[in-house]
Amino acid sequence: MTPDLIWLWLDRAGIVLGVVMGVTWLGGLILAAFRPEVLRRWFSRNRFPRIGGTQVEDVDALVFTVSKPEVPAWVMTQLRLKAVGFIATEQSRDAAGELRRTAERQGVRALEPVCLADPDNPAESRDRTAALLVELADYGRLAVDVTGGKTPMSLGAFMAAEECGARTLYVTCEYPQGKPDMRTAAIACISRPS
Amino acid sequence: MTPDLIWLWLDRAGIVLGVVMGVTWLGGLILAAFRPEVLRRWFSRNRFPRIGGTQVEDVDALVFTVSKPEVPAWVMTQLRLKAVGFIATEQSRDAAGELRRTAERQGVRALEPVCLADPDNPAESRDRTAALLVELADYGRLAVDVTGGKTPMSLGAFMAAEECGARTLYVTCEYPQGKPDMRTAAIACISRPS
Repeated sequence: MTPDLIWLWLDRAGIVLGVVMGVTWLGGLILAAFRPEVLRRWFSRNRFPRIGGTQVEDVDALVFTVSKPEVPAWVMTQLRLKAVGFIATEQSRDAAGELRRTAERQGVRALEPVCLADPDNPAESRDRTAALLVELADYGRLAVDVTGGKTPMSLGAFMAAEECGARTLYVTCEYPQGKPDMRTAAIACISRPS
Repeated sequence: MTPDLIWLWLDRAGIVLGVVMGVTWLGGLILAAFRPEVLRRWFSRNRFPRIGGTQVEDVDALVFTVSKPEVPAWVMTQLRLKAVGFIATEQSRDAAGELRRTAERQGVRALEPVCLADPDNPAESRDRTAALLVELADYGRLAVDVTGGKTPMSLGAFMAAEECGARTLYVTCEYPQGKPDMRTAAIACISRPS
């Protein structure tokens, strides 16, 4: 194998690869020009590859959707949090205020609770949750607990978590007489986006 | 260093760079074809660009997460559906069966209700919802109604809808004495992925 022969074969490899590149590039170009939605759908549909599990230890800052104070208060005793935020409604404003004081008594930094104007609006929940996650980013690894609140609040908070690459947590618990029995409670992971 | 020699080495540099480009392009091409999620994860996070709104008319087939029968029964009277599916739990199995009979009386094709083993497991809800959406795909435009069920069920069904490119719907409603007052009900769109 002389140097000249090596260069000859490298050159030929370059020619073949050049044709592959050129043809596929042209194909991509035509798709991009006339059917961009095909490329968009191929690459950009939402995916949730890592659902479930119980690895919730390494969370530094957490945003809760709040309806009642019991479950978030219990979560704050289970995780070593540095900071927390709360997404509340008109009805749960007092519960969020109480949770904030509880957090501060434990030496956890608590942001001013956010009160949603419309608990049925997932976009508002998403935007307010995303803003809290940005504020909390300096504290380390972020997560959102979507146990409380109405379903659109939880969905909005989940979307914010996915968009920020934060985990989504949920507290499973038995409700024997409509009240949570915290002895049966466990923190589960809904999704770990990255 | 004669001009000829400079050109020779420029040519060789071009060949080497061409091979590098070709090989990485080919690698990218293979990934894009067979494992696009690897590229997606590298470049992009989940995005929810179209949240909210009330454009829910053009739905042909719908999967409900079920806890009580009232709200899904009302939704079936509001939309001209061709087919429906139900994600239920042990507790809501009877409600789902009742809804199935209601649908069939209205001439709507109803799949066998799916009963989740663990309502707190979002992965199970996602997988079962995705399977129903595949079964319903022939009926036309798909959607998921996440109003009923526990939050992990709704989140799982929402994930399935996003992954399939189906809409997610939610019924907003006032609950004056813990019972839904259907006169105040409205169908809202949570997300329209594509």
